[in-house]
Amino acid sequence: MPVANAYAVRNPTDKLSPYSFERREPGPKDVQIDILYCGVCHSDLHQVRDEWGGSKYPMVPGHEIVGKVVKTGPAVTKFKLGDLAAVGVMIDSCRKCRNCNNYVENYCDEGITGTYNAIERDGKTLAQGGYSTTIVTDERYVFSLSPRLDLAGAAPLLCAGITTYSPLRFAGVKSGTKVGIIGLGGLGHMGVKFAASFGAEVTMISTSPSKEKDARKLGAHNFLLQTDKGQMKKYDSYFDVLLNTISAPHDYAKYLNLLGYEGKMMIVGLPSVDPKVEPFALLKNRRSITGSMIGGTKETQEMLDYCAEHNIISEVEVIPMQQINEAYERMEKNDVRYRFVIDLASLKN
Amino acid sequence: MPVANAYAVRNPTDKLSPYSFERREPGPKDVQIDILYCGVCHSDLHQVRDEWGGSKYPMVPGHEIVGKVVKTGPAVTKFKLGDLAAVGVMIDSCRKCRNCNNYVENYCDEGITGTYNAIERDGKTLAQGGYSTTIVTDERYVFSLSPRLDLAGAAPLLCAGITTYSPLRFAGVKSGTKVGIIGLGGLGHMGVKFAASFGAEVTMISTSPSKEKDARKLGAHNFLLQTDKGQMKKYDSYFDVLLNTISAPHDYAKYLNLLGYEGKMMIVGLPSVDPKVEPFALLKNRRSITGSMIGGTKETQEMLDYCAEHNIISEVEVIPMQQINEAYERMEKNDVRYRFVIDLASLKN
Repeated sequence: MPVANAYAVRNPTDKLSPYSFERREPGPKDVQIDILYCGVCHSDLHQVRDEWGGSKYPMVPGHEIVGKVVKTGPAVTKFKLGDLAAVGVMIDSCRKCRNCNNYVENYCDEGITGTYNAIERDGKTLAQGGYSTTIVTDERYVFSLSPRLDLAGAAPLLCAGITTYSPLRFAGVKSGTKVGIIGLGGLGHMGVKFAASFGAEVTMISTSPSKEKDARKLGAHNFLLQTDKGQMKKYDSYFDVLLNTISAPHDYAKYLNLLGYEGKMMIVGLPSVDPKVEPFALLKNRRSITGSMIGGTKETQEMLDYCAEHNIISEVEVIPMQQINEAYERMEKNDVRYRFVIDLASLKN
Repeated sequence: MPVANAYAVRNPTDKLSPYSFERREPGPKDVQIDILYCGVCHSDLHQVRDEWGGSKYPMVPGHEIVGKVVKTGPAVTKFKLGDLAAVGVMIDSCRKCRNCNNYVENYCDEGITGTYNAIERDGKTLAQGGYSTTIVTDERYVFSLSPRLDLAGAAPLLCAGITTYSPLRFAGVKSGTKVGIIGLGGLGHMGVKFAASFGAEVTMISTSPSKEKDARKLGAHNFLLQTDKGQMKKYDSYFDVLLNTISAPHDYAKYLNLLGYEGKMMIVGLPSVDPKVEPFALLKNRRSITGSMIGGTKETQEMLDYCAEHNIISEVEVIPMQQINEAYERMEKNDVRYRFVIDLASLKN
């Protein structure tokens, strides 16, 4: 059985430290990937610390995985040895419900099987993520990656990328759409890149004036300082689409008035305190609020192909595995532009 | 100038009492209507008591108006003397913005001019509503009414009717759609009738078991008792569309889990406390919450024609004007099935 060198936590207060475990021998439809890079998502931190409840230990986090195929089962059709491949937030789903049949497995009736902090569908194996040297996954949940993309920059596409690409597509963002991206972090910076690449007029909406320069560099055309009442009034009823990436406690009411006729606020963040909605603001302009959660296998592959064609990657800071605890501390202070990515070479040799 | 006999309040604590005032002489595009019936909407009560702020006195409430055309301006094309006609929640809008040009004047950029408790667009005239014997309105905001409809039962179509018809249409309700109507009052009972007439599978969602019998009589196929956890679980992720008609304080979170894939909760109520939303529940199934506010002139006429064709009217209790204060007291106790309608004959002769 393939042995994975990894970093894991054993309990909610533990620091990440070296750990090794066995992956399963690839089955007929399985692909074994030699992991080259793995992105560090804010949700890794939440789950390591059991902030959403139900965390399973030992836990090897990581669901922004890119690497090279080193073994394939006999029934695998999409991959051959040496291909670049990627794994995202899910490694399985029921494969029977209407949503699975339509390749929107992210909305599987039974719920997805997460790449880590989950029990696999055999009912016993603890799924372990990409802070490790190798992974074995059914090819349905493995994506092809173009060699044209920078690999470290491509890793965060598997979560931050698809999480922002899917709602922008769902909301029909295209040339001329007025899009506001709320919050400039790992998700927000991908939102700006995608919306700009779709031809939208992009406005970064932030509470930090210091974010303006970066936002414009990433492709934003305008900057709206959310704390400035005059500016907020100027943008009243202005936007067709808002992409709300904020995970800190906040009220949706604050942003609703920015939406024009049939304007849509797409929600991808998960604040720990339930946000409030002002009904008057919702009724005006027939506004809506819609949730969006990663993307299905079909759309994830479409997004990766789109990124290869348009040379879109995440802005990343590459670290060796040994610096992960320091990276977590910096991430908590928002001291990262905009994603840490682990170079798994640091766990090999 | 035409004199209107009416009932009005002079301040927020006043009871309604007799009042008379002059309407304008019909201008070129104006229609003068002899009012036969006027529905009593819960929003009349809110505005009479200044519960939403900014109320203007003296106030003659009423925006569910049906009657007969008694005079037309020379440029009027839609009406002739003796025609049945109706006026709803708005009597004017900017007529220049994109939404007005598309006949969704209810979402006018400048806001609608309400039928009462508003200043008309001449900047000085206080708009007065339908608790009166006559009204003069620009024909754009006057609707044709089929003589096939019972007139008293048709009056509430102008607010309760269009307020529920529009969101159900917007959400694409059709044959086989699983629709839940939340709350069985003036709005909810029209929601049940419309959804059933569109061929939907209709479930009444209520906190009162006593509502089941009536709900089924109105056309509901199922009854879901919101206070019963087992039943709520049974309907988890079940509905395509929820029509939320509740105006009492409540959290949207409670109902979100009832929505299936891409399920939509349409909001038409205006609770005075901002409702909360649970982000996890919103992300699951890519659910959405959308506001809806009455309807435009085009859709209101479409709705009235639809009602004539399908013989849909509101369930009403007809009262003389002199009983309006008692009716308000009963309305506050939800002691009405499902709409009071004033017979304006009681103010004539």
